[in-house]
Amino acid sequence: MVMTDMVSRSGDGASKDRLRLWIRLLRSTRFIEAELRDRLRREFDATMPRFDVMAALYRNPDGMMMSELSRHMMVSNGNVTGIVDRLVADGMVKRWQRDGDRRTWLVGLTPAGTENFAQMAAVHETWVDELLGDLDPQAVAGLTGALQDLKSDWEGRK
Amino acid sequence: MVMTDMVSRSGDGASKDRLRLWIRLLRSTRFIEAELRDRLRREFDATMPRFDVMAALYRNPDGMMMSELSRHMMVSNGNVTGIVDRLVADGMVKRWQRDGDRRTWLVGLTPAGTENFAQMAAVHETWVDELLGDLDPQAVAGLTGALQDLKSDWEGRK
Repeated sequence: MVMTDMVSRSGDGASKDRLRLWIRLLRSTRFIEAELRDRLRREFDATMPRFDVMAALYRNPDGMMMSELSRHMMVSNGNVTGIVDRLVADGMVKRWQRDGDRRTWLVGLTPAGTENFAQMAAVHETWVDELLGDLDPQAVAGLTGALQDLKSDWEGRK
Repeated sequence: MVMTDMVSRSGDGASKDRLRLWIRLLRSTRFIEAELRDRLRREFDATMPRFDVMAALYRNPDGMMMSELSRHMMVSNGNVTGIVDRLVADGMVKRWQRDGDRRTWLVGLTPAGTENFAQMAAVHETWVDELLGDLDPQAVAGLTGALQDLKSDWEGRK
């Protein structure tokens, strides 16, 4: 990330501090994300969007409509469709029609998909634990709380 | 993002807290990033990678080699090449051979590119200021510091 480059330019002090915070947030998140992405690919031959789709389906064992899944994922419907197609081909996801509604299709994990995701999720949690492991519990709580405030501010503005 | 879904599962308390922090980091960053991406597209018809490339070149008025630019960007060389090609076609970037080294090409902003980027960067800073604006200066400093610790931890581990 190169946006640090811009910090020394215009704007008042508080505005510069916020820009600096944003660059740090972006850089930290990208760093961890890249590491997790590499490990998912290496260890499980899985992409991050595939992992996210499986996580959503794991929590919704009664199935989800594709539109629900897309909303959940913050990615385009088209992308989700491709990921689900691939998961179906791999035997990890199945499609079925909703009872009494022949036009509505639901998707959900197969038993093999459930087992595969549970395994990935457990390992993924140990990775996150390792990557954030040097933060003491107090720092973790402080950061989480501060980000929560930020989040609710945005939600209020939306 | 659906990974919140996983928090209630296995792992000890501290490990769960770290996973929760990671999910919040990812979600906060994606939210702001999506907003900035939308605004860059709407207001300047620019993508985030284009903005990042221009930011790097803005800070290096003597030019950069493509390999330097790629390292800086954390994206693939191929992507950077496409972005630079487009910027050249738009008159924002020029290429030239390094003095005394006919095989090495440098890229840099044209005067039009410099002006265009300076304008975008100023507006971008006001957006970040607005999106993070409800955080008081103390919270901004606290978050920045905590993330800095995190960053140096990773760097130490690499």
